[in-house]
Amino acid sequence: MDIEGIGHHISRQYNEELEDIRTKVMEMGGLVELQLVNAVKALEEDDSELAETVIATDYQVNSLEVEIDEECVQILARRQPAAGDLRLIMAVIKTITDLERIGDEAERIGKMSLNFKTNDNIKSTLPAIGHMGSRVRVMVHEALDAFARMDAEAALQTWHGDRQVDKEYEGIMRQLMTYMMEDPRSIPNVLDLLWTVRALERIGDRATNICEYVMYLVKGKDVRHISAEQMEKQILS
Amino acid sequence: MDIEGIGHHISRQYNEELEDIRTKVMEMGGLVELQLVNAVKALEEDDSELAETVIATDYQVNSLEVEIDEECVQILARRQPAAGDLRLIMAVIKTITDLERIGDEAERIGKMSLNFKTNDNIKSTLPAIGHMGSRVRVMVHEALDAFARMDAEAALQTWHGDRQVDKEYEGIMRQLMTYMMEDPRSIPNVLDLLWTVRALERIGDRATNICEYVMYLVKGKDVRHISAEQMEKQILS
Repeated sequence: MDIEGIGHHISRQYNEELEDIRTKVMEMGGLVELQLVNAVKALEEDDSELAETVIATDYQVNSLEVEIDEECVQILARRQPAAGDLRLIMAVIKTITDLERIGDEAERIGKMSLNFKTNDNIKSTLPAIGHMGSRVRVMVHEALDAFARMDAEAALQTWHGDRQVDKEYEGIMRQLMTYMMEDPRSIPNVLDLLWTVRALERIGDRATNICEYVMYLVKGKDVRHISAEQMEKQILS
Repeated sequence: MDIEGIGHHISRQYNEELEDIRTKVMEMGGLVELQLVNAVKALEEDDSELAETVIATDYQVNSLEVEIDEECVQILARRQPAAGDLRLIMAVIKTITDLERIGDEAERIGKMSLNFKTNDNIKSTLPAIGHMGSRVRVMVHEALDAFARMDAEAALQTWHGDRQVDKEYEGIMRQLMTYMMEDPRSIPNVLDLLWTVRALERIGDRATNICEYVMYLVKGKDVRHISAEQMEKQILS
């Protein structure tokens, strides 16, 4: 789908520059998704080697953020983009900030999984946390997919998915609180899980941010801080 | 201090536009600081009216974010800024994202304070939380001050201040964990404080982000994701 001719400039080099940025955002997104998957897997399977890999790989996410930011500044300075191109650059600058922070959350989950000691009670919540992890990973994936295809309606649909993440979050929180009350000695350990679940919830929020940038990119309307009803009107009309 | 002539353009209107954006960022920063002060005060003094005010005022922070973003896009489209001006716009776009999220954290603290029920044990941590709140407020203030004065060295100094916030964070966390283990019935209540302390810690992180943008703005070097030593070399040399 084309937005006011993104990628159809007389300058072939300019086209390539824009395309390169989009490719790099997808690359960064793919890496962040992998980090997230591995962090949750390391926790579920008590795999400290995998956790170490997640921690060691975070610098790659950070490097991509700096690199893409720099390319955006170069394009702003040299190409003086307007309309859809300018919105693309704005959306990229904001998207990569959220992707980098999702990477940070994944790294945090990796670090927590290293300290984590399972007991039978706590173990029983791991499948629910794994499920929540898959759900937010799918959200991140769909948000980036909507970005790649510049599909505002898909972005809106993914945005709505965060409600379900919040529900899972609350359910797991209640369960963890019960464990702490039943067995106070488990508190330090359960708190690590609590932070993990909170990190996943925040990743869901960040995926909705990316969805909002996609809607802005495609429709030229800032849909942050408005109600779900207003958003539907803006995007589906 | 002037950076490559920011505010010294032949077009008076362009000067005014840049100045207007800087003024609005400071206004947004002032509002966010106030939100933070009031949220922590509402918690400390069990003042539900003040908490409601914080919650009700968040939309003003959000509006300013959208407004400033829009002005940045307008300037990018019409003025095609280069060098220092372009870095200013980039720094503003990123700074207001962090300011808005600090506002969100303040709102969250406000909401938590509404549910919060004090008992003597828990009450005894409030002064420490209040102290941590003041410290992160000062960090936000100093970061914005460095932004207003375009002072990279001040930004670096504030950036270092986050270590102290992290220390206070860990101290309070240990104390809260002890309370939970001693009195498991207090767990739901203590968890609210735990989220508050975590929110304050995150606000400190966001203040360091703003410091990094100021260093980028003034020095033209991206100082994210590098070590403290490297950062000192970049800024003080």
